Amino acid sequence: MYQITSRLQPDFEMICGNFKGKDIVSLDQFAVADLDKLFTVTRQMKRIAENNEPSRLLEGLLVGLLFFEPSSRTFSSFAAAVKRLGGQTIEMQNPEAFSSVSKGETFEDTIQVMEAYTNAIVLRHRFSGAAEQAARAANFVPVINAGDGNNEHPTQTLLDMYTLHERFGRLDNLTGLLAGDALNSRTIHSLLRGLSLYENNTMYVLSPRQLQLSRDDFVSLQDRGIRLIEIHREQDIPHDCDFWYWTRVQKERFASAEEYRRAQSEIVVASPALLETYAKKDMILMDPLPRVESVDPAVDADERAVYLRSQIRNGVYTRMALLALVLGRI
Amino acid sequence: MYQITSRLQPDFEMICGNFKGKDIVSLDQFAVADLDKLFTVTRQMKRIAENNEPSRLLEGLLVGLLFFEPSSRTFSSFAAAVKRLGGQTIEMQNPEAFSSVSKGETFEDTIQVMEAYTNAIVLRHRFSGAAEQAARAANFVPVINAGDGNNEHPTQTLLDMYTLHERFGRLDNLTGLLAGDALNSRTIHSLLRGLSLYENNTMYVLSPRQLQLSRDDFVSLQDRGIRLIEIHREQDIPHDCDFWYWTRVQKERFASAEEYRRAQSEIVVASPALLETYAKKDMILMDPLPRVESVDPAVDADERAVYLRSQIRNGVYTRMALLALVLGRI
Amino acid sequence: MYQITSRLQPDFEMICGNFKGKDIVSLDQFAVADLDKLFTVTRQMKRIAENNEPSRLLEGLLVGLLFFEPSSRTFSSFAAAVKRLGGQTIEMQNPEAFSSVSKGETFEDTIQVMEAYTNAIVLRHRFSGAAEQAARAANFVPVINAGDGNNEHPTQTLLDMYTLHERFGRLDNLTGLLAGDALNSRTIHSLLRGLSLYENNTMYVLSPRQLQLSRDDFVSLQDRGIRLIEIHREQDIPHDCDFWYWTRVQKERFASAEEYRRAQSEIVVASPALLETYAKKDMILMDPLPRVESVDPAVDADERAVYLRSQIRNGVYTRMALLALVLGRI
Repeated sequence: MYQITSRLQPDFEMICGNFKGKDIVSLDQFAVADLDKLFTVTRQMKRIAENNEPSRLLEGLLVGLLFFEPSSRTFSSFAAAVKRLGGQTIEMQNPEAFSSVSKGETFEDTIQVMEAYTNAIVLRHRFSGAAEQAARAANFVPVINAGDGNNEHPTQTLLDMYTLHERFGRLDNLTGLLAGDALNSRTIHSLLRGLSLYENNTMYVLSPRQLQLSRDDFVSLQDRGIRLIEIHREQDIPHDCDFWYWTRVQKERFASAEEYRRAQSEIVVASPALLETYAKKDMILMDPLPRVESVDPAVDADERAVYLRSQIRNGVYTRMALLALVLGRI
Repeated sequence: MYQITSRLQPDFEMICGNFKGKDIVSLDQFAVADLDKLFTVTRQMKRIAENNEPSRLLEGLLVGLLFFEPSSRTFSSFAAAVKRLGGQTIEMQNPEAFSSVSKGETFEDTIQVMEAYTNAIVLRHRFSGAAEQAARAANFVPVINAGDGNNEHPTQTLLDMYTLHERFGRLDNLTGLLAGDALNSRTIHSLLRGLSLYENNTMYVLSPRQLQLSRDDFVSLQDRGIRLIEIHREQDIPHDCDFWYWTRVQKERFASAEEYRRAQSEIVVASPALLETYAKKDMILMDPLPRVESVDPAVDADERAVYLRSQIRNGVYTRMALLALVLGRI
Repeated sequence: MYQITSRLQPDFEMICGNFKGKDIVSLDQFAVADLDKLFTVTRQMKRIAENNEPSRLLEGLLVGLLFFEPSSRTFSSFAAAVKRLGGQTIEMQNPEAFSSVSKGETFEDTIQVMEAYTNAIVLRHRFSGAAEQAARAANFVPVINAGDGNNEHPTQTLLDMYTLHERFGRLDNLTGLLAGDALNSRTIHSLLRGLSLYENNTMYVLSPRQLQLSRDDFVSLQDRGIRLIEIHREQDIPHDCDFWYWTRVQKERFASAEEYRRAQSEIVVASPALLETYAKKDMILMDPLPRVESVDPAVDADERAVYLRSQIRNGVYTRMALLALVLGRI
């Protein structure tokens, strides 16, 4: 069953059960059956990684990590995914400072040079749409979007969805609380879009008013069939959430330090007291990290806090699965 | 048949059929028989790479990539060559900023430390003669020149020559057009020297007068036996060239942006119209890249344009062959 | 026989014959029996490396190289150690500029993220105590100290001790000369502490008066049972030393270039004449490198100068052994 979403751009090819050779640019390429397949492979990958099993699945293959902006976490996670499977990386960070890009080379040429050296390209870029542009430029190898500006970061959402799926055995009939910078958080937007593929999900969005979802995002998400309830005060947090998903306020989006401080002061921090008051015993607390005044470190010891346990590790496993599928090795 | 060229420096050891353990500093170390051997191995390497064959040819070996100036293309190409063959890299970029070099360590000590960690050193440096200096400093492992200032970049020329050899089955009796910045282009100079090893080659050099070959270079190249014809206008391009080799004007060589723009304005760009008018059906169009206002991207779709196809890939294959030979694994 | 030293901090776990899973933060964790074991394994590692034997000892394992300050030598040595044994590295350099750290992430979170991707973390940091802090933060993988500020750099001392042990077959009853910046040199302090584990060692410390050992260090070292004799003039160098250990004056420690120059002018440089006059035929001359006006390059050709021969190579072998032991693969 391949559910085609209305927001699919004409240039994104749906996966439709076949990952091999496909560019992975947007979450919208995934139908429920594709996610099922990915999660099945991810479970296999988890076993390999947890057992430190020497894998040769990607032996003989080179994956280019082309990072136009720094992102050590995503970079390391992809590098670990490649190397856990016996592949090798060709790493190019900050090419605008250090490479032919600085001599005036076009983005398209940089992509086409990288694909001559590799079997797949993982691209990080600060401009929205860069991943799609790269996918169009590449003639021979698949491009995987590792975050393009405010646009998408599909592997982050895939790991978040896998984490929920692993914990609850389903991605429908879930009640969640998404907190923090709902206006700017790419991870909140994408997770909501991902969960809208499934039925009967109810999501509470907790933020100060100036950081609530834009009206456009609110309407378009509701149109996709997810139930959204916006709240602004701690005391409105429901007691029956299956998961909390906390995000930091993105300092870099504010015009002044003063405005950032004002927004930050209105943020509800996930603390032991907050969990004690509002959280179910069997919920999980997620955070895409880095956390900066979003989740109190005193919560870390709580078993429900999965951000530094399964969630971060699932990032490696999901990327292992995606690479193995896209490279046709599984 | 090992033809010794007149410009050979006393410190370069000729290859004379035996690559193992040799420093690769200059194109002048190669005789025709050495090139034949290299090209034969390169063809094998191409098969390994094209089939993504897991190779263990360099298993257990470490290659140091010591880049004193950034060059992401050459760096990635060498890294890909090592890793395609099952070897590993030890990478040190920009050591003058980040390492003991900044504490006052000498170049010789840096080389000798690197050789203690590796089985071969690939060196990039902005100073002419750095590769020879490194080769003298290294006592245990071979040094491969990946470009030393305006001096030499032998692996670039080897890949250019392999590309011609693969296409035409020979490196003699060729007619070529070399265009762009003939005065400053290290790749044009080296390719002309390389082709002068073979008989009966005729090379047209197309450039604005202020960017034509220096008289010294012109005379010394002609002395090596290659036929050179300098032209300055589009309409003088002959119709019978086997290949075109286009280069960018090197902005960084000009005293002012104004002077650069003036030179650039007199440059003939390789456009679809230019190929339509002057190029044979079975010629190839090469460019060492990066291209900056040298070849019109509209030409990319033309099958004769090999710069982003075989030429860039041959860089990896040639370097695989050179490493396998120098490390004595083939 | 596991000798517990008096300066052991409560948070360092002694090795006590079992390296597996242990953090390696301080030299004080090692008893004589642990050093014996490490040296035995180091000899095996040396054979693997010298024969370029393809080893799979660390196959399937990832080692994070997390370097908060640049140190190309230590970085490359650890990278070589991992790769020589068939392992892979996840490399994060200068995370304060390039990563989530710049977004405000805590040191503890950075460590816990890195451990989610890897099987061990090698940490370099400019702050004293960073390694211990990291070891406490990491819940799942061992942390190896690759130098934390002025505090410790245990693998440097382990390689120095292995070099002496390999040469003399013992680490007791040795007479040594340690020269240069005795006040600031972390390597001199640590080597003296290491040698104090063994009986009947006599160490001459040669330095200008303003760079002699601090009185605290002098007293605490003597309390550990090593015989220390401070000298300040070339003519007081004894003729019976088994080894010389030379260090540079650390320019970065001086308030002004003038003060540095004054201190440097009083330093005795290890020259061929100095060796001719004072050194035994069968001694060895060591230097932790980089050398800057410490050892005259004219000495390099002397067989007794081991700094660019066995000493630097032993760094790789010792780190191979330590990694294999800590990762439980030997």
